[in-house]
Amino acid sequence: MIHLSKWSAALIASALFAAAPVHAQTAERQIDELVLRVERLEGTRAIKKLQRAFGYYVDRGLWGEAADLFTDNGTIEIGMDGVYVGRERIAEYLRRLHGGQEGLIYGQLNEWVTLQPAIAMGADARSATARWRDLGMLGQYKDHAEWRDGIYENAYERGADGIWRISALHLFVNFVVPYEKGWARLREGEGLARSEASQAFPPDRGSSSDYAAFPAREMPPFQAPHPVTGKRVQER
Amino acid sequence: MIHLSKWSAALIASALFAAAPVHAQTAERQIDELVLRVERLEGTRAIKKLQRAFGYYVDRGLWGEAADLFTDNGTIEIGMDGVYVGRERIAEYLRRLHGGQEGLIYGQLNEWVTLQPAIAMGADARSATARWRDLGMLGQYKDHAEWRDGIYENAYERGADGIWRISALHLFVNFVVPYEKGWARLREGEGLARSEASQAFPPDRGSSSDYAAFPAREMPPFQAPHPVTGKRVQER
Amino acid sequence: MIHLSKWSAALIASALFAAAPVHAQTAERQIDELVLRVERLEGTRAIKKLQRAFGYYVDRGLWGEAADLFTDNGTIEIGMDGVYVGRERIAEYLRRLHGGQEGLIYGQLNEWVTLQPAIAMGADARSATARWRDLGMLGQYKDHAEWRDGIYENAYERGADGIWRISALHLFVNFVVPYEKGWARLREGEGLARSEASQAFPPDRGSSSDYAAFPAREMPPFQAPHPVTGKRVQER
Repeated sequence: MIHLSKWSAALIASALFAAAPVHAQTAERQIDELVLRVERLEGTRAIKKLQRAFGYYVDRGLWGEAADLFTDNGTIEIGMDGVYVGRERIAEYLRRLHGGQEGLIYGQLNEWVTLQPAIAMGADARSATARWRDLGMLGQYKDHAEWRDGIYENAYERGADGIWRISALHLFVNFVVPYEKGWARLREGEGLARSEASQAFPPDRGSSSDYAAFPAREMPPFQAPHPVTGKRVQER
Repeated sequence: MIHLSKWSAALIASALFAAAPVHAQTAERQIDELVLRVERLEGTRAIKKLQRAFGYYVDRGLWGEAADLFTDNGTIEIGMDGVYVGRERIAEYLRRLHGGQEGLIYGQLNEWVTLQPAIAMGADARSATARWRDLGMLGQYKDHAEWRDGIYENAYERGADGIWRISALHLFVNFVVPYEKGWARLREGEGLARSEASQAFPPDRGSSSDYAAFPAREMPPFQAPHPVTGKRVQER
Repeated sequence: MIHLSKWSAALIASALFAAAPVHAQTAERQIDELVLRVERLEGTRAIKKLQRAFGYYVDRGLWGEAADLFTDNGTIEIGMDGVYVGRERIAEYLRRLHGGQEGLIYGQLNEWVTLQPAIAMGADARSATARWRDLGMLGQYKDHAEWRDGIYENAYERGADGIWRISALHLFVNFVVPYEKGWARLREGEGLARSEASQAFPPDRGSSSDYAAFPAREMPPFQAPHPVTGKRVQER
C-alpha cells in the first residue's frame, strides 16, 4: 500500500483534467481544418458534376432537368440574349432556344461540349466561381451544321441543405460558325447574334456586358485571380 | 501526504477509463468519416485517370495496356458491335478494330478524345459509374478523316487490392462523320454501323440496347440521378 | 476513505502518462496521414487549375500571366522549337510566337483547348507529372484557320511557399492542319515545322526528343506508369 503525496495528487488531477483535453483540442482543431479542406474538395467535385450535367441535359433537350440545377434566383445569360432569372424562366428560355419542344427533334444535333474547368472555391466552401470552355457541335440534319466557341464565367452556391447549385451561368459566345466555312471565313457579324427566342421571349434583364465576338476580340472577364501571383487578371 | 476520498478515487478511475476514450472515440469516428470522404475523392481521381489512360493507350495502339485497365470480367461495348468480356477478348477486339497490328501504322490517326466526366461515386467508395463525352479524331492519311461523336456510360470497381478498374465500358456512338461533310450531310445509315472486326470476331453477347444514332435521336440512358433533385433522369 | 494499492497507483500512473498519449498518438498519426492524402488531392486540383489557366491566358495573349505560372527555372518546349528556360524567356517566346504584341490582334483566333488530364501525383505531394490532350483552334480571320492536335507531358512542383507551379511544359505537336483540308489531306511535312519565332529568337536548348509528327507516328513518351499494373508504358 502506498500513499500519494500532495504533489502526486495534483499531478494526477492536472493530467486528468488538462492533458487529455489538450490533446483532444489539438486533434479537434486539426480535424475541423481537415473537414473544411475536404468540403472544399467535395465542393469542387460537386460543381464539376453540376456544370457537366447541364451540358448533358441540354444535349438531349431536358430543359426542366437543366433548370433544376439552378438556385431559386439563379440566372442564365447566353451570348447577346440577356439575363433570365429563376428556374421557370430558364427552362422556358432553353426550350424556346431549341425549337419549343421537349427533347430534340429528328436530326437536331445539340452537343454542348463542356471543357477545361478552372474552379475558384471560396475559403468557406459555400460559394465558388468557374471558367469553362464551350465547344458546341450544333446543327440540323440535311440543313446546317455549326461549331460554337465560347467561354463560361459562372458562379455557384451551396445551399442550407448542403447541395451545390448554379447561381449564375454566363456563356460568352465567341462565334457560331458554319461547319463548311470554318472560322476564317465567317461573314462580318455572322458569328454572334441575339436569338429569335430572346426576341420573342424577352429576358428579365439586358446583357450584362458589351459584347465583342470574333473576329473582334471577345473579352470574358476573369473572375478568379492568378493562381500563382494572386493578382487580378485583366485582358488587354 | 493526503488520502484520496472514495469519490476522488472513483472520479480518477472514471476519468482514466472513460474521459480520454470518449474524446478518442469522437475523434476516431470523425477520422473514420473523413477517411471515407477522402477515399471517395481519391476514387473519383482514380477513375478519371483510368478512363483517360484508356483514351491515351488506344490513341497509340497499346491494346494490352488498354485491356489491363479492366476487371477480370470487365466488358467493353462500342456502338453496335456487341459486348466483349474479359481482358484477353477486349485486347483482341481493340486490336482487330484498328487493323490487327500492335501500335498504329503510318498515317493512322486514332485520337480518342475523352471529355466531360460526371462521376457518381458509391457511398462506400467501392464502385462508381460515370458519363463521359467522346470526340474521336480518326482517319488514315491520304485516304479518309472523320469526327466521331459519342457518350460513354461506364462502371468501375475498387478491388480487394485497393485498385480501381473499369468493370464496364459502353460507348454509345452517335455518329462517325467524314470530315469533308460534317454532320448535316451524312447519308442515312452512314453514321453508325457494326464494324468488320465485330463481324469477323463475334462478341460474347449481342448489343445491350436498341441503337438509334444520328440523325435519329441517340438515347444513352443516364445511370446517375439528377445531382440536385436526386431523381432518375430519363430522356423523352 | 480508501488507500490505493501499489498496483492501482501504477495503473493510474501508466494510464495518465501512456494511455491518453497512445490514443493521441494514434489519432495524430491518422490525422497526419489524412493531411498528406488531402494535400495530394489539393495538389492535383492546383495542377489542373495551373494548366487550364495557361490555356486561358495564352488564348487571350496574356504572355506575362502565362509565364508567371512557371517556376524560376521552368521550361517550355513546343513542337520542334526547342526549350526556353525561365519566366522572362518563356513570356518573350510566347509573345513572338503569336505576332509580337501584347494580347491578340483583330481576327486572331488562338484557342488552346486543354483536355483530358492524367495526373501522377508524387507520394509526398511536392511534385507531379501530367499528360494532357491539346486541341488547338487557331487562325486569322479572312486568311487561315487550323486545328492543332497534340499531347502535353508536363511536370509540376510545389514551392517552399506551398504554391504549385509548372516546372516543365512540353507540347508534342502532332499536326497543325488547315481547316479546309482536314488531317487526311495534309501535305507531307506540313503538319509540324519549327516556328519563325524559334528561328529568330533561338531557344536555350535544342529539342529534347527526335520528333515524328503526323502522318508519321508521334511518340510522346508516357511519364506515368500504368495505373493498374504499375508498369512503365512504352509505345511500340
